[in-house]
Amino acid sequence: MLLHRPFQLHARSRFSLLSLSSPFRRGITYLPKSHTKLQRRSVIRISASITAKPSSELRKKHKSSDPDDKLVALRELFSRPNINIDAYIIPSQDAHQSEFTSECYARRAYISGFTGSAGTAVVTKDKAALWTDGRYFLQAEQQLSSSWILMRAGNLGVPTTSEWLNGVLSPGCRIGIDPFLFSSDAAEELKEAISQKNHELVYLYDVNLVDEIWKESRPKPPNRHIRLHDLKYAGVDVSSKLSSLRSELINAGSSAIVIPMLDEIAWLLNLRGSDIPHSPVMYAYLVVEIDGAKLFIDDAKINPEVNHYLKNAGIELRPYESILSEIESLALKGACLWLDTSSVSAAIVNTFKSACDKYISAAGVVVNNNKKAVPNGPEGQSCGPTAVYRTSPVSLAKAVKNEAELEGMRNCHLRDAAALAQFWAWLEEEIGNGVILTEVDVADKLLEFRSRQDGFIGTSFDTISGSGANGAIIHYKPEPSSCSIIYAEKLFLLDSGAQYIDGTTDITRTVHFGQPSSWEKECFTRVLQGHIALDQAIFPENYPGFVLDAFARSSLWKIGLDYRHGTGHGVGAALNVHEGPQSISFRFGNMTPLLKGMVVSNEPGYYEDHAFGIRIENLLCVKEATTPNRFGGVDYLGFEKLTFVPVQAKLVDLSLLSTTEIDWLNDYHEQVWEKVSPLLDGPAHEWLWNNTRPLVKA
Amino acid sequence: MLLHRPFQLHARSRFSLLSLSSPFRRGITYLPKSHTKLQRRSVIRISASITAKPSSELRKKHKSSDPDDKLVALRELFSRPNINIDAYIIPSQDAHQSEFTSECYARRAYISGFTGSAGTAVVTKDKAALWTDGRYFLQAEQQLSSSWILMRAGNLGVPTTSEWLNGVLSPGCRIGIDPFLFSSDAAEELKEAISQKNHELVYLYDVNLVDEIWKESRPKPPNRHIRLHDLKYAGVDVSSKLSSLRSELINAGSSAIVIPMLDEIAWLLNLRGSDIPHSPVMYAYLVVEIDGAKLFIDDAKINPEVNHYLKNAGIELRPYESILSEIESLALKGACLWLDTSSVSAAIVNTFKSACDKYISAAGVVVNNNKKAVPNGPEGQSCGPTAVYRTSPVSLAKAVKNEAELEGMRNCHLRDAAALAQFWAWLEEEIGNGVILTEVDVADKLLEFRSRQDGFIGTSFDTISGSGANGAIIHYKPEPSSCSIIYAEKLFLLDSGAQYIDGTTDITRTVHFGQPSSWEKECFTRVLQGHIALDQAIFPENYPGFVLDAFARSSLWKIGLDYRHGTGHGVGAALNVHEGPQSISFRFGNMTPLLKGMVVSNEPGYYEDHAFGIRIENLLCVKEATTPNRFGGVDYLGFEKLTFVPVQAKLVDLSLLSTTEIDWLNDYHEQVWEKVSPLLDGPAHEWLWNNTRPLVKA
Repeated sequence: MLLHRPFQLHARSRFSLLSLSSPFRRGITYLPKSHTKLQRRSVIRISASITAKPSSELRKKHKSSDPDDKLVALRELFSRPNINIDAYIIPSQDAHQSEFTSECYARRAYISGFTGSAGTAVVTKDKAALWTDGRYFLQAEQQLSSSWILMRAGNLGVPTTSEWLNGVLSPGCRIGIDPFLFSSDAAEELKEAISQKNHELVYLYDVNLVDEIWKESRPKPPNRHIRLHDLKYAGVDVSSKLSSLRSELINAGSSAIVIPMLDEIAWLLNLRGSDIPHSPVMYAYLVVEIDGAKLFIDDAKINPEVNHYLKNAGIELRPYESILSEIESLALKGACLWLDTSSVSAAIVNTFKSACDKYISAAGVVVNNNKKAVPNGPEGQSCGPTAVYRTSPVSLAKAVKNEAELEGMRNCHLRDAAALAQFWAWLEEEIGNGVILTEVDVADKLLEFRSRQDGFIGTSFDTISGSGANGAIIHYKPEPSSCSIIYAEKLFLLDSGAQYIDGTTDITRTVHFGQPSSWEKECFTRVLQGHIALDQAIFPENYPGFVLDAFARSSLWKIGLDYRHGTGHGVGAALNVHEGPQSISFRFGNMTPLLKGMVVSNEPGYYEDHAFGIRIENLLCVKEATTPNRFGGVDYLGFEKLTFVPVQAKLVDLSLLSTTEIDWLNDYHEQVWEKVSPLLDGPAHEWLWNNTRPLVKA
Repeated sequence: MLLHRPFQLHARSRFSLLSLSSPFRRGITYLPKSHTKLQRRSVIRISASITAKPSSELRKKHKSSDPDDKLVALRELFSRPNINIDAYIIPSQDAHQSEFTSECYARRAYISGFTGSAGTAVVTKDKAALWTDGRYFLQAEQQLSSSWILMRAGNLGVPTTSEWLNGVLSPGCRIGIDPFLFSSDAAEELKEAISQKNHELVYLYDVNLVDEIWKESRPKPPNRHIRLHDLKYAGVDVSSKLSSLRSELINAGSSAIVIPMLDEIAWLLNLRGSDIPHSPVMYAYLVVEIDGAKLFIDDAKINPEVNHYLKNAGIELRPYESILSEIESLALKGACLWLDTSSVSAAIVNTFKSACDKYISAAGVVVNNNKKAVPNGPEGQSCGPTAVYRTSPVSLAKAVKNEAELEGMRNCHLRDAAALAQFWAWLEEEIGNGVILTEVDVADKLLEFRSRQDGFIGTSFDTISGSGANGAIIHYKPEPSSCSIIYAEKLFLLDSGAQYIDGTTDITRTVHFGQPSSWEKECFTRVLQGHIALDQAIFPENYPGFVLDAFARSSLWKIGLDYRHGTGHGVGAALNVHEGPQSISFRFGNMTPLLKGMVVSNEPGYYEDHAFGIRIENLLCVKEATTPNRFGGVDYLGFEKLTFVPVQAKLVDLSLLSTTEIDWLNDYHEQVWEKVSPLLDGPAHEWLWNNTRPLVKA
């Protein structure tokens, strides 16, 4: 699945790629014009369930009540004495910057009626506006009432949220936000932008105004039990992970870290949850100190086994809501707190800063509250609380998989491949028999095949199932009410993935059920050449992923083609299907080197508007390459394939391929047969045989 | 010729690549360890002549006098009342950040006795230290007297100049520099570093202390006449160029620019000089205002024709030495001055700042002296002098060649190729006859062949002529007294170039006169594959060059090989052999896009210490590629070859090449024959025929 970057608060989706606010985007000055790309977050669901329900059932729409009543109710809150604001901003995010969120946090969808995945609502005393990007203009037009102004983000002349606020409010207004829903960096950027008109950014800690009017109809926060992630899949136990983290804290001169990212918590503690669709995580905060750790979580989610496990690991339980008072306590005891301001909320960062200030005035001493940590005075005693602003060390540790995690990834990919072989055999048979199937039907059927596999937990993202022109909509999500049928005479693109007990999958194949045109074959073959070039790349250690991106595009560039998305994203091990910090992309700002053990997708594509889409995606693991030389004394790295599903031979124009490329394809198919055929029988076994036969250039 | 970045003042050559001080290096965080590279500036010459003298004659050493006397004399100056310093730093640079400098500016070589191209001397009241990099450790050991400490820059534990000064001086000292010899950025960095020990950086405007003791023995500054660069080669006349520059000034809200870079001045005015070896430029400053321009130059260099030409172009002449008073005048008349602080000297930037301050206190008004230009008040009248800190706009304008410049480049490359064919035919014949020739002999002979070509002016850099192991010394410069003979049974690397009236060349070929080993052939073939991959690259417009760098390395990486230099540098049209702002390199910080009309080198290599060096270099011009599609509505770019000299077939292992690669080689050789054979007769004609025959895979 393609990586879709989180929608930007300021509705500058088209320009926000150039923003310096994210560590992933630094240093970009000349971004190719053609590569500015709209972004996306997953659609917010009615149901937070991630059990294997058919997609059709999962896709009920929010009932739309009169949005005017909601706006009236919201504005009434503006004038409460403890609130006293002139505008309120409602983003899509939850408090953990999650890519997918639980339904109870879908506040922007509730207040605006617009259920698209990406958008920001801004309500003033007399206006209400919603920003979304080009993928959702039509949907937003249909769903927004006349009380709302639709802001087509990215269109020429459309202001950002802060520009709009600066324009419609008289100077010196108070603009409210829920400070939990903004990263500290995002809030600072917003504060700076609105300060041009002397507006004040008001952090409303105690109440989310949308929740206040949502009341009883608001879905309950998820509270299902969390589970242990078996050590045979995790590979490293929680005490070792905590011990490594504590070494990092000590090296950075800090005494504690607060971790809001849900996948980082799940990884660090070897726990998994089911609070969020597609991602096996649970809502929580984790605070790790040198001599202890506290998990802030709704204790209804903790069964006796997990309770015992956490106790053994020295992790104390605290209520989810008490995170801010913990932050204050940390300041009071003079902690040097590691804060990743790109992910930690403005609420937490500001609470810590205020508590530090209080400490200082109480102590009557001057302490260094700058970026440099000064945890101890000259005699070793604490000289007051400080903050270290750095990228979370858990992000990189999690990205580099250990052997057990890789083994889980390898194993689940074979089971996933078996499900896909069964699916493709079934689909070809059905289409061949003239059965009419919709894009949603096939996504549901695929889910059915996958759900029969051992250890299956759920999808890892919404299946992208696009026939013909729909395949060219990079972020296409078929809806039962409006989706297309699968045309036998058109290209069909299927991007899907699953969560298993032992790993996470993500695969795209593009097929044709009839006779592809020579143009479709040429495009497919060039995408395949890019896929092969990246798969076969060998490169010295410490190179960032973007160095390899051009390998995947070169064959398309030769004839003036390209694609407007990155080539590869990180993938978690039985965790989020998208994870950082590495990537393989034309976004040159991400300098994270590719390291042995990282998992990345390899997914070049080509998309012809109103015609077809092509993408070929495997997951790869970075491994040491066994080169005969090691110039410079460094390791040379390459990739190991994790995905083993045939590439449709019918779409390959062999005359365009070099001998090496044909050898690659035949070797791959031989491996597919050897690894996956033992898991199959019947028509799927036969389908696999037919689809892994060696190709010979005429 | 490889691009050797200027030696860094602070003797951190190995780490300075990570410095953020240069706009070329921004955004680098993870630089591959294996690619930190020592840097180099050209050797400073006794003679400033660039006429076609044989290398042997050009390579006389500086006579070494007793350096102690010089140090004593220098230190005596420290205590003069108007000087009053505790230390003095003597860099290699001239006042224009030139890669090659005139001999009269070789102050560091004079004071230290060390004549290597890269180095910084620092003299305190009781110590003297010289920093240089690994290429020069041996030479420096031989040349430095016992009064000097050799600082082996880049070696573990060796301090930078500022670290050393901070260590040896008691706090609060005065450290003097000649502010003309430091860019403003470099001086600011130095000031910041030494401020840690409360040292003050003292700008000695009025006197260069080394010149003061050098006295009569100091070579006279060059004063030969400058010449017009014919419009048929320049393509655009001076008034059009000035008019474009003035549009840029107006767009940036500035009213004037000061240009210290000698190649920018030569390009802008369509003038050429002979003040510096290898570079056809003259020492000068240029100040361009909206309604006028002034050239600051020794008027002995101006003949009546040039005088008339400049008058017609509206360019006034001023003495070279009066630049600072002009800068003061600009401030006094309220100019908004465009300053590129990476190239403009600290002397100029600080003079302008001081003059602005004076203006302010005199006027008693508050003006905006920040980066944003505020040239005019609300009623249109000037509201005080300001500065705009930006990269010089001339750099990019010069890099994008017009059709006349490209035509000159194409033409001179054919004549250069004819000289090289004559040279290689001669050399193979001599070696075949058992004649013993040294590396310097063959460099001299090559100069002789080139000097017979029409429009030849001189070499564009010191010829790198390395047999066997010497070829592995990337910055090798053979000396008559110590160089090797050309071994018939070893690889021979020859990197050379010339200045012609119509263009500049730079070419490397590697050959074997006997029977190369299969390992040498494999290495050569992989370098060739990288060369072909870059030559054949097609890419969308607006991509920076580093995206293509991996294409040139990929074939080497496959077997764990690499090279520790960039793949391509910009080349001037009848100007400097190295120019920015573009590059093709693993230094990911240079985001300058490759643009149609830019000239770059394509020079992958492989170097095996103590054994051999391989490099294959052509110059290329960026051109629009005629792709059948234009996805994204952008132009796709590719390269046109400028260099037409055969690649030695004997060194190619055809079994490693794909059909496409063999086709490339045969097609190239066919073009070489067609374009160059008409310029040849006799043995060279026959040599070219033999060396351009098509190759067929067995």
